Amino acid sequence: MTRPPDETGIETLIQLMSRLPGLGPRSARRAVLAMLKRRAQVMAPLAQSLAEVALNARDCRICGNISTADLCPICQDPSRATGELCVVEDVADLWALERAGVFRGRYQVLGGTLSALDGLGPEELGIPRLVARVSDEAVTEVILALSATIDAQTTAHYIADALTVTTAQITTLAQGVPVGGELDHLDDGTLGAALRARRKL
Amino acid sequence: MTRPPDETGIETLIQLMSRLPGLGPRSARRAVLAMLKRRAQVMAPLAQSLAEVALNARDCRICGNISTADLCPICQDPSRATGELCVVEDVADLWALERAGVFRGRYQVLGGTLSALDGLGPEELGIPRLVARVSDEAVTEVILALSATIDAQTTAHYIADALTVTTAQITTLAQGVPVGGELDHLDDGTLGAALRARRKL
Repeated sequence: MTRPPDETGIETLIQLMSRLPGLGPRSARRAVLAMLKRRAQVMAPLAQSLAEVALNARDCRICGNISTADLCPICQDPSRATGELCVVEDVADLWALERAGVFRGRYQVLGGTLSALDGLGPEELGIPRLVARVSDEAVTEVILALSATIDAQTTAHYIADALTVTTAQITTLAQGVPVGGELDHLDDGTLGAALRARRKL
Repeated sequence: MTRPPDETGIETLIQLMSRLPGLGPRSARRAVLAMLKRRAQVMAPLAQSLAEVALNARDCRICGNISTADLCPICQDPSRATGELCVVEDVADLWALERAGVFRGRYQVLGGTLSALDGLGPEELGIPRLVARVSDEAVTEVILALSATIDAQTTAHYIADALTVTTAQITTLAQGVPVGGELDHLDDGTLGAALRARRKL
């Protein structure tokens, strides 16, 4: 069995593409073929954009967001110094909150949850730095916007404990029925949490 | 609603990625984030590989396959001058046949099917060039490996007509039950074709 475009670098490109999440070997091949057919319009601009971002992207020195400057646009924006600090697990969560446009304060990205197995302790997640930041920036509210998984909730409790030395109020996201969610498709845990946290209409 | 990494080129990259087949806006964002987290190991090599292929890839002068030389590896390989010529619609079909490793002759890629709407006539599909090639290279068999769609079959009939001026035998792929296919999941057309083309055991 011979693969035709061997020495041409095309197979290497397909392999690299197939490592991206959401793309397997088949869809990577399809994507590469689609690019090969529109080299000037699709492939060249994508290659250039990738190279530029790969060269310029860096982690924000303060919050851990990814941008192309030493300080990300959010940390640079003086109107976002609201005294509210939102702690998220991952840059993806920060982007999701920004897309929703519901939060006008600043962020701190942990980069994971506490895990002895993965060698992620408080130091690796920047928790001492977070505590120092809450004091230094006179943060009034720390919102722990972590996932509802056991690992993330353990991490949230650890952070809440560590923050008792500061005067900031500590809050967490509400649990309940998702907007547009149907009751009979919800798991028992969510249904229970929604019932316990019921409010007056 | 503000999108944080606006002026950083990251949004542009996500938009370019989301134009690839199989990737929507969400999965493009996920793929870009995964790359951003592993810039040195994933993003930079991919950018370089893309740039190289975009710069070097070209259509084979003879068969239309995509490679990085004026003549593709198949057209350059003297052992593949078997007198058998396989006509396919698309480079993807050529690659699929090569992956299967079942054909040792050469190819001709049409680049589509006859379509007045898309301005694809015999000239655009290279059919006159195909007829000339069959005579010049003393091809003994032309295999029309086109899809079983109406457009592709119309094109196949047109090509068969055009090739009557040559002495080459004209064949087409067998229709029938796919290997591993279950009868009760097959459509009636395939079942009928398989029954009509039944053979002695």
